[in-house]
Amino acid sequence: MRSDSSRLRFEVKAQDGTARTGTMQTAHGPVQTPAFIPLASKGTVRSLDSAEVAGLGFEMVLGNTYHLFVSPGPERIAAAGGLHRFMGWERALITDSGGFQVFSLAHGGVAQEVKGRGRGGRGAAVLIEEEGVNFRSYKDGTPLFISPEVSMDVQAKLGSDIALVFDECTPFHADRDYTARSTERTHRWLDRCLRWHRDNGPRRQAVFGIVQGGVHEDLRRESAQAVSEAPLDGLAIGGTLGRDKAEMREVLSFTAPLLPAGAPKHLLGIGEVDDLLAAIALGLDIFDCAVPTRFARHGVALAPSPDTRFRIDLRKAGWEGDRSPLVEGCPCPACQRHDRDYISYLARAEELTAIRLLCLHNLTYMQELTAHARLAIAAGAFDSFSSEVIAGDPPWATSCSS
Amino acid sequence: MRSDSSRLRFEVKAQDGTARTGTMQTAHGPVQTPAFIPLASKGTVRSLDSAEVAGLGFEMVLGNTYHLFVSPGPERIAAAGGLHRFMGWERALITDSGGFQVFSLAHGGVAQEVKGRGRGGRGAAVLIEEEGVNFRSYKDGTPLFISPEVSMDVQAKLGSDIALVFDECTPFHADRDYTARSTERTHRWLDRCLRWHRDNGPRRQAVFGIVQGGVHEDLRRESAQAVSEAPLDGLAIGGTLGRDKAEMREVLSFTAPLLPAGAPKHLLGIGEVDDLLAAIALGLDIFDCAVPTRFARHGVALAPSPDTRFRIDLRKAGWEGDRSPLVEGCPCPACQRHDRDYISYLARAEELTAIRLLCLHNLTYMQELTAHARLAIAAGAFDSFSSEVIAGDPPWATSCSS
Repeated sequence: MRSDSSRLRFEVKAQDGTARTGTMQTAHGPVQTPAFIPLASKGTVRSLDSAEVAGLGFEMVLGNTYHLFVSPGPERIAAAGGLHRFMGWERALITDSGGFQVFSLAHGGVAQEVKGRGRGGRGAAVLIEEEGVNFRSYKDGTPLFISPEVSMDVQAKLGSDIALVFDECTPFHADRDYTARSTERTHRWLDRCLRWHRDNGPRRQAVFGIVQGGVHEDLRRESAQAVSEAPLDGLAIGGTLGRDKAEMREVLSFTAPLLPAGAPKHLLGIGEVDDLLAAIALGLDIFDCAVPTRFARHGVALAPSPDTRFRIDLRKAGWEGDRSPLVEGCPCPACQRHDRDYISYLARAEELTAIRLLCLHNLTYMQELTAHARLAIAAGAFDSFSSEVIAGDPPWATSCSS
Repeated sequence: MRSDSSRLRFEVKAQDGTARTGTMQTAHGPVQTPAFIPLASKGTVRSLDSAEVAGLGFEMVLGNTYHLFVSPGPERIAAAGGLHRFMGWERALITDSGGFQVFSLAHGGVAQEVKGRGRGGRGAAVLIEEEGVNFRSYKDGTPLFISPEVSMDVQAKLGSDIALVFDECTPFHADRDYTARSTERTHRWLDRCLRWHRDNGPRRQAVFGIVQGGVHEDLRRESAQAVSEAPLDGLAIGGTLGRDKAEMREVLSFTAPLLPAGAPKHLLGIGEVDDLLAAIALGLDIFDCAVPTRFARHGVALAPSPDTRFRIDLRKAGWEGDRSPLVEGCPCPACQRHDRDYISYLARAEELTAIRLLCLHNLTYMQELTAHARLAIAAGAFDSFSSEVIAGDPPWATSCSS
């Protein structure tokens, strides 16, 4: 890790067991941790104006190098003055390196694969070489190339406050041998990313490394060591965490302690309520995930209902005449103004208003979850807070049946 | 027309030529006229929460009997306490009778036909009889029946402040003879609507009649007379207005003077900028139209650009790097926060945020247009106001090239 703080200052303010709360000071302001980071992969959080995302209390969003590289392209965003200005977002911004998405093409759906749910072997025309990765645009099939240098160059043009290094994201079905070789390449790519950034990167842009190694404890240890020794501002845990929640918890529980205590730690792509609590307990700090906005698109609301995996499906029958808000006590506009009867009607009718109301609700839910987690950690009461949420009785909402 | 004012009080405050400005006092508050009425056909204005629609300054929205009859059904809305409560809208609400939509099925696209653009003869399985109309649900093909009594019953359950009578909406391709017979049936249906409403309607719900007669001056005169003699609270001009804008202006110019001066007058389904100004000049008061929200869905923004019919297409190429707002001077959130470069990118990427930003902009445009029209009429300057808008130089925005 780097010892200076000109690009990112991370301060732990309170610790409760291994859970901690603190502040990450970026070039575009502070991020209170633990923090949930909404996805703005293509330069917008689904259906929301950037000012509304800030209004919900979020201090950072995540843009995606892969999507923005394909369209509208880094030159156009640079010409606008960077991604902050392009999308009208004045707070902190982190950019994913594009590795996850590129390898998703190669491995036939990494999004499923890293969670052990894919079938593997459905790889698209993606050529992974030491130099970088050749692939085709998802929009029009144009041949494209991303290397560590290209990814860092794109992220420099986007002007994010935190860039992530370009890694190979190994899927669940990769064997130990492949994972070992891939992890070593990820470390060579890390060096190339840092070299490019040292010579060309924006002065105030921080860089996070990515710890790979799949589900293998020794590979995670080697990777954690390589990443910890590099001059980085923080690190992220990437790659597959196993086939189910139990294995994910196990992989996280042996990986988290391998990381340097003082560094800010990003868990990539994890954001279900129970997973987030488990990761916060292990001392991880920031979390991005498609869940709140993807659920919204499918008519699903986050809710304090452990029996239904903390979600309720508004597209199902049975909500007719239900005069309760989505979640009793929730401060979001959907819950303040409307009932389940109306929102379920809108969701079944596939009205855009339903997606929007559910985005507002689900993001508020994550914001409340992390805000209360920060308070609980500061009060030394994270365990009991976590138990309450898991039991379906969080402090910002009333327990509800589905 | 009715002479009492227990259900709707309409007061003309200023007159400028035949244009006038006034207030329609409904059971849910006042509507300043001339007013543009956003469509909430299915119980929501596209992508907007009801509170946001009020925030834009609108005092009335239009719900649709046909859509809400098919789904979620009048019983469910009545159980919620009516459409106001169902959708969280506290201001005035008018409901269309469903006639336009039902006959759209029969005549193969009335929406196009009334404007003389359809081909005719593509009728779906719709059976029009004296008793009413048999048709099938657009959702699942269930056989359904709407008559004057059913339409009024549905509108009573919706609890709108103004119900429209059930009429046959004759298409452009209908000949004079068919139009004459259809208009007579519309008058018999008017009587049935009023009889049902007198015996069963909500006490505070006003009823508007609909003047039919197609493009034929004598038929419009007969219809205007029949409607004017009925105990109604206001009236609407429906049916085809001809094949193009010139014929529409002509039909409106001989129809408008046939209507009783003191009654509030609704022009159904017309809302392009120039058409609205022409109709306001003729003394018409309220206007509903899909244009602002439909344009938004197609990436089109309303703009003071007469050369491109008061619209700009953000999905076209050529907006890259354009740092202007959609419309210079426009007070909407899209124009206050974003530029054409970003919004055109979002529109081409088919992001929901684009539809939403364009809905906010286009509705703001109609709100500004009518608000300034009211001021201009009160100041006796409607003609010069209208000329400025038509020339591309409205008082709330800066003339722009496309």
